[in-house]
Amino acid sequence: MDRLTIVKVGGRVVDDPGMLNAMLDDFKHITGYKLLVHGGGPAATRLAARLGVETRMINGRRITDMETLEIVTMVYGGLVNKRVVAGLQARNCNALGLTGADLDLIRARKRPVEEVDYGFAGDVESVNIRELRLLLAENVIPVVAPLTHDGNGMLLNTNADTIASRLAIEFSNYFKVLLFFCFEKKGVLSDPQDENSILAELSESMFAEYQVSGIISSGMIPKLTNGFYAIRNGVSEVLITNTENFARGRGTRLVRDR
Amino acid sequence: MDRLTIVKVGGRVVDDPGMLNAMLDDFKHITGYKLLVHGGGPAATRLAARLGVETRMINGRRITDMETLEIVTMVYGGLVNKRVVAGLQARNCNALGLTGADLDLIRARKRPVEEVDYGFAGDVESVNIRELRLLLAENVIPVVAPLTHDGNGMLLNTNADTIASRLAIEFSNYFKVLLFFCFEKKGVLSDPQDENSILAELSESMFAEYQVSGIISSGMIPKLTNGFYAIRNGVSEVLITNTENFARGRGTRLVRDR
Repeated sequence: MDRLTIVKVGGRVVDDPGMLNAMLDDFKHITGYKLLVHGGGPAATRLAARLGVETRMINGRRITDMETLEIVTMVYGGLVNKRVVAGLQARNCNALGLTGADLDLIRARKRPVEEVDYGFAGDVESVNIRELRLLLAENVIPVVAPLTHDGNGMLLNTNADTIASRLAIEFSNYFKVLLFFCFEKKGVLSDPQDENSILAELSESMFAEYQVSGIISSGMIPKLTNGFYAIRNGVSEVLITNTENFARGRGTRLVRDR
Repeated sequence: MDRLTIVKVGGRVVDDPGMLNAMLDDFKHITGYKLLVHGGGPAATRLAARLGVETRMINGRRITDMETLEIVTMVYGGLVNKRVVAGLQARNCNALGLTGADLDLIRARKRPVEEVDYGFAGDVESVNIRELRLLLAENVIPVVAPLTHDGNGMLLNTNADTIASRLAIEFSNYFKVLLFFCFEKKGVLSDPQDENSILAELSESMFAEYQVSGIISSGMIPKLTNGFYAIRNGVSEVLITNTENFARGRGTRLVRDR
């Protein structure tokens, strides 16, 4: 099978022109098929503040009322996505920006209201990569914003890590998929106080232990949960890394329990 | 040759949910291949006002400084484009939203500064429809926002009428292209005071006469100039119409001089 590398970069990377350009320079040099998923949280929070719209986060998730949905549609689907696409085109990478609504890529349903009403947040229901497979064969590089749709005309705000892992799983039916989560640190740290205490590998049972002992912080848990879900569902390799190291394959590799 | 219908709808249509939905209902029923180009001016002007950014128009064109470029990228490429895409998906039309940067669809160069400095406004240089032709064959419906790129990472603001006519010309090498410009009136009026004085046809020589006599107002001139340019360059049919009438092919047909 051909190799497909899916890189997820967070909102802080795409928010800083220097970091974004460095990341795109490295991304360009990844061989084989590739796909980028981006966040955009800091830019959305900034626009919300300028518009006088309060940003409310619960468990690291944005509460998405109608005004916030418009803001994230503008920032994720417009500003950030098109900036990344234009940056890749400048590097002779034939990028195509998409949300989950485009090509019916990702359908979701509005998250049911339980203890928390997340508003227009979408939980992924189905992934359709038929057209993207054709486009990959033409050397197109999909750039996916963290938005989905419900099939009834409503856009929904969906976590970028979840989108990356769900796409990775779907593509693993056709490709050997490498999934790289780029965040602020070089990998998962065994000592939260020591930036260089990077674990080479992390298994699901170690992950459970580290959660109990508090070594792995709450912000990392959804990312790792998504990563292990991907590795259990056909994705060949999941790496927790940062923008300086992903292209060299350095970081913490998630491994299945033996 | 197969038929491709390109419909350009203005910013006022996409700004009003009722008008947008009515337009999409009609658009859905167009037979054969189809493509939509949209504006977004009123929503961009409104967001600019909320952000305290002054909107400056000269000759009907928006002066696009860096802040305005960010605003139109968010509004045209994000808010409006994704709203249209989600609306088409809800109608079982497999829409794909694009700017000129996506798939390297439209390259432009920053308009040279002459009497007026339009800022980050792009004049179209080249159009690449290779990937869109493959996607049309898969029944994908491209939805194009009025943004282009310069190939060096810069997005540019480009008139939606121009984008529609340049795409129509490029596609006319492969399709019988019908180009519909939807605006506020039912067609070109022979008497600006009488909304029902719609010309069935308008030739380029009549257009020249009407400009001299002032019957055709300044706002219509770029639209008609683009339309005649298209008809001279391979496009089969150009219709000036509105959202109530385009699907029935009613309006003013541009014709070549005999």
